[in-house]
Amino acid sequence: MSEQKKRGEQTFALSTPPTILGFANVVGKKEGEGPLCATFDIINPDTSFGEDTWERAERTMQKLALNKALAKAQKTARELDLLFAGDLLNQCISSSYAARDAQVPFFGLYGACSTMAESLSLAAMALDGGFGSCTAAVTSSHFCTAERQYRTPLEYGAQRTPTAQWTATAAGCVVLGTEGGGPRVTHVTVGKIQDKGIQDPNNMGAAMTWAAYDTISAHLADTGRSSAYYDLIVTGDLGQLGHDLLLELFQRDGVDLSGNYDDCGCLLYDRQAQDVQCGASGCGCSASVLTGYLLRGMQAGTWQRLLFCATGALHSPTALGQGEAIPGICHAVAIEL
Amino acid sequence: MSEQKKRGEQTFALSTPPTILGFANVVGKKEGEGPLCATFDIINPDTSFGEDTWERAERTMQKLALNKALAKAQKTARELDLLFAGDLLNQCISSSYAARDAQVPFFGLYGACSTMAESLSLAAMALDGGFGSCTAAVTSSHFCTAERQYRTPLEYGAQRTPTAQWTATAAGCVVLGTEGGGPRVTHVTVGKIQDKGIQDPNNMGAAMTWAAYDTISAHLADTGRSSAYYDLIVTGDLGQLGHDLLLELFQRDGVDLSGNYDDCGCLLYDRQAQDVQCGASGCGCSASVLTGYLLRGMQAGTWQRLLFCATGALHSPTALGQGEAIPGICHAVAIEL
Repeated sequence: MSEQKKRGEQTFALSTPPTILGFANVVGKKEGEGPLCATFDIINPDTSFGEDTWERAERTMQKLALNKALAKAQKTARELDLLFAGDLLNQCISSSYAARDAQVPFFGLYGACSTMAESLSLAAMALDGGFGSCTAAVTSSHFCTAERQYRTPLEYGAQRTPTAQWTATAAGCVVLGTEGGGPRVTHVTVGKIQDKGIQDPNNMGAAMTWAAYDTISAHLADTGRSSAYYDLIVTGDLGQLGHDLLLELFQRDGVDLSGNYDDCGCLLYDRQAQDVQCGASGCGCSASVLTGYLLRGMQAGTWQRLLFCATGALHSPTALGQGEAIPGICHAVAIEL
Repeated sequence: MSEQKKRGEQTFALSTPPTILGFANVVGKKEGEGPLCATFDIINPDTSFGEDTWERAERTMQKLALNKALAKAQKTARELDLLFAGDLLNQCISSSYAARDAQVPFFGLYGACSTMAESLSLAAMALDGGFGSCTAAVTSSHFCTAERQYRTPLEYGAQRTPTAQWTATAAGCVVLGTEGGGPRVTHVTVGKIQDKGIQDPNNMGAAMTWAAYDTISAHLADTGRSSAYYDLIVTGDLGQLGHDLLLELFQRDGVDLSGNYDDCGCLLYDRQAQDVQCGASGCGCSASVLTGYLLRGMQAGTWQRLLFCATGALHSPTALGQGEAIPGICHAVAIEL
């Protein structure tokens, strides 16, 4: 019988916290022009990545992110015991086609924009559970593939509402190992699906904020930690509206997050100059912010304790067409030096 | 540092094999008229499950399967430490909307028709790794949701090719625990994506067989077991064509599977009388055969050692439209008394 790792309702404290051996990101032109430009490994000048379809471009991003993260971890694909990957496209084709060449044991995931936290959670849990010594988590999104699948063809030039978010053209990958120095994944809080009846696909921040509130609250209750324990609690990607709503929800509970809270959707772009309404979204948003700004910041000593809480909206255009609301989920991963 | 469970390339031997505490399935009218009719828990007379859309019908099946399996395991949803679920629909809406009410820590998966093996693998690995004491794996497919998403609207009445398979209207759920008697999950072999260039979405058996061949071969090599060790090796769902091709591939290696091999896609329907061409497919096919015919058979003493190898085709209509081939994956789960 294995040692039980459960703490409270939905948090697992890893008994041998896996180490982040390597991390990398790949972004498109617009992301490379944003405020985090210095934190990216690969910036493509035209978002096509040399491919003839946007879908091929997205999978190329995922391949590049995996290979770059492996190289930085001084590992090869053959050394990977498990790869966890997912994306936003129907049937998760970015992940499947990207992983086809790597020839590694593969688990496909769907967590919408929460996928970086979901994949990182499972990759860390696998190692802590004794399932190998090296795992990886990778995800991506591409503005041009997501826009035409979820909203309208790009050629329509549809107007965007003020609450809309801009799907990031980005991929991120984290390689974990059982040995080595560096930031460690210490806790995983697995999200429960939250649905407050929000039906507007142009206001996903509102739909996902409740999930972030629920999971972060559970994490703090389960671990007995106060929010001040973390140098930074970062959600991804609620956007400006969701960011403000989350602060307000915690304020009602007497918890002041204003000093150590940020959101990947607010960080990736310059909202005004880059005309992205409420901010960034897409699996690649929190993935590229984690594997750039956040983990580079930890390496530089800016933060010692990070709570990474990627959020996802689990709807589909079909579900919305049938009158459904948008359920949200958030998984929280504690990363500590 | 946790005890390492890896054997060979891609197999994990669970150190404290989790027990199958409960299992259940839910099927539609056609499945209820097939040869396995006596092995189903719930048979709906009209496949609508009382809902006004096929998508809602599918999620209702998943809810019913989860609740029935929990009841048979004498557990409540609140006792579930983790739920692993996935389905075929865009953005996996059957799983997300079904799990919304259960309020359990949730990981969404996408493994196409391999999802029953993927979810069962992760649910077993989680328990063996110390992540809780009760987990569940659930998946579903519905002929009417899949047909219109992947092929043509039902109203077209499109002709089917002789190599086509019929998407099962079915859901299956397995509840696992760290304690209790019953069949146990002893080994998990995680699949690598295989792609032999098959581009015909009406011949998925051919596309997926290579993945089954690769994973079963890896399982036998990794564990040092001969194929005769298992009372039954069952793939799901290659259909008749894939079934025959798999036998041939192993024959070339000098391995005779003819005495202890079957396929969920061949088992679910009476192929001639029910006009289903090469057999059944869909996540719900292997899920309902596992949670009916197979696990009931183990309970009845028909088999002691089962290798359950669900197979999935990881393409999408968009990918095929862009000239891609159909990559396949297969995960193998050893279930032993």
